[in-house]
Amino acid sequence: MPQALSEFDLIKQYFVRQRPGRATLGIGDDCALLTPTAGKQIAISSDMLVEDRHFFAGADARMLGHKSLAVNLSDLAAMGARPVAFTLALALPQADRHWLAGFAEGLFALADEHGCELIGGDTTKGPLNICITVFGELAPGQALRRSAARAGDDIWISGALGDARLALAGYRMEQNLPPADLATAAARMHTPTPRVALGCALAEAGIVHAAIDISDGLVGDLGHILKASHVGATLDVDALPAGPVLARQDSALRRRYTAAGGDDYELCFTAPAASRDAIAALAISCGTPVTRVGRIDTEAGLRLVDAAGLPLDLQLTSFDHFSG
Amino acid sequence: MPQALSEFDLIKQYFVRQRPGRATLGIGDDCALLTPTAGKQIAISSDMLVEDRHFFAGADARMLGHKSLAVNLSDLAAMGARPVAFTLALALPQADRHWLAGFAEGLFALADEHGCELIGGDTTKGPLNICITVFGELAPGQALRRSAARAGDDIWISGALGDARLALAGYRMEQNLPPADLATAAARMHTPTPRVALGCALAEAGIVHAAIDISDGLVGDLGHILKASHVGATLDVDALPAGPVLARQDSALRRRYTAAGGDDYELCFTAPAASRDAIAALAISCGTPVTRVGRIDTEAGLRLVDAAGLPLDLQLTSFDHFSG
Repeated sequence: MPQALSEFDLIKQYFVRQRPGRATLGIGDDCALLTPTAGKQIAISSDMLVEDRHFFAGADARMLGHKSLAVNLSDLAAMGARPVAFTLALALPQADRHWLAGFAEGLFALADEHGCELIGGDTTKGPLNICITVFGELAPGQALRRSAARAGDDIWISGALGDARLALAGYRMEQNLPPADLATAAARMHTPTPRVALGCALAEAGIVHAAIDISDGLVGDLGHILKASHVGATLDVDALPAGPVLARQDSALRRRYTAAGGDDYELCFTAPAASRDAIAALAISCGTPVTRVGRIDTEAGLRLVDAAGLPLDLQLTSFDHFSG
Repeated sequence: MPQALSEFDLIKQYFVRQRPGRATLGIGDDCALLTPTAGKQIAISSDMLVEDRHFFAGADARMLGHKSLAVNLSDLAAMGARPVAFTLALALPQADRHWLAGFAEGLFALADEHGCELIGGDTTKGPLNICITVFGELAPGQALRRSAARAGDDIWISGALGDARLALAGYRMEQNLPPADLATAAARMHTPTPRVALGCALAEAGIVHAAIDISDGLVGDLGHILKASHVGATLDVDALPAGPVLARQDSALRRRYTAAGGDDYELCFTAPAASRDAIAALAISCGTPVTRVGRIDTEAGLRLVDAAGLPLDLQLTSFDHFSG
């Protein structure tokens, strides 16, 4: 029988890597040390993932490793910051070698893709809880803030929405999906793609005003931009790009799940009409499709309309961790 | 009946403060933005506190707010980094206003004392879990690393050890303590004092080699210095300064709890004999007592001795989160 893993063995075996990194000092001291690039600002985001809240009990460890970092990288992308490093704090019910190997594999595959180095953290025994804090860099003045939307801006969405929400409905038996469709939709839920290249390219080009990542559903997240920017918006719900599986569902479901699905990890950003061609060109160079889906208004409030411009009442609610 | 708190109300009401801070952009966007001081390195530490593991169920929220930040500031102190900012990720079984108000009070009282600003984080529903990531600054080359101890160094300890461990023994009925003594010892357990001023002063003066903060018990934590520095040590256990309550207990208990108590959050550091006077002077100016308790040896291993220099076998074990 293999020996029980101590806390220090666990860190050494699964999370310390023998390769040169960006950090001046990484795992294994009281603190990690980062030397910031001269003249850059540091963007910092922290997300905590809890079993039965953000993922199912028994969720695949590799996917969980991916998703835990992906949701944080998505926050950097929404700010236009280039990923540099992250810390990982992990509470585990037990030190399960199979789980740890899978989790580390998913985590590092995504981290390596983005040159984002694990520089420190903590492990403890406790109900499964994954807390990642991520660090990115960007030039001063370049950050895409929620408060920067202006009346007249176009509203843009990256990628496609709603397949993660559709997978949840499939798991909950609220929707009956063929196994292949459920698997496709579920991949969006379990292994979202943070839009780092697009977010950074948009911020560096200086052609975008506000941005946010869509984690709690578009309507709620766009609402944060509207509130912070003291503006309103009109959203063409039928223009919202649906994920490939959701695109085959009826229009009522499509509207609901694209407008307020959650777990999308796409970017929603606003930009002046003069930026349209530049945005389209950047999106192509990043390999990330983008779609114009509405406009920012002077008038407060969010107006949902259909393809004909007629008002829609979808009775949507955004996700809130403490409501029900 | 007061209305239920939403996630956003909770953050706004208890954790967003209307005062100018160090951050370029704080709570309320996808990321916080920090502008590092030119030429400084950033020290980063992350600690996760879990109910029934790091604190009792039903622990006083104000003390918990203090301790959650204190253990992180202690890591900065051990590196010699000046606190700048922190993020807070919080999983809560429910949004309890009384608990939140107490937690925020304890947290911000200590944060303000150290000019350390809350710049972001996350809140979610889940088993109580507190994850703080703290950021400090220091000049390149000034960090007090675990790997820097040299044979011939003195070993120093700040403050006093063991009262936190004695309080735990009192709570567990392993030791019978008068209520006033338990209360005094328990204050060390619940509201430790991170030795930030001392750690920074020592690092800035450049008179110290290695340092670590004592969280899992001196013998275990000093062991990390020995391993990282490829040296050994002789520790005069009877020279270890005991907390005021432990100081009144018998010598066997005093030896055990000072040498391997845990939850002390004092600094253990090594320095050449030539630094003795300078260290004593700095300690006085910081208002933090320091005591010389041993020396670093070329020979590997840690030798525990009594006041007469005779070997002691205390059968100590250091704390490990995954053993037992």
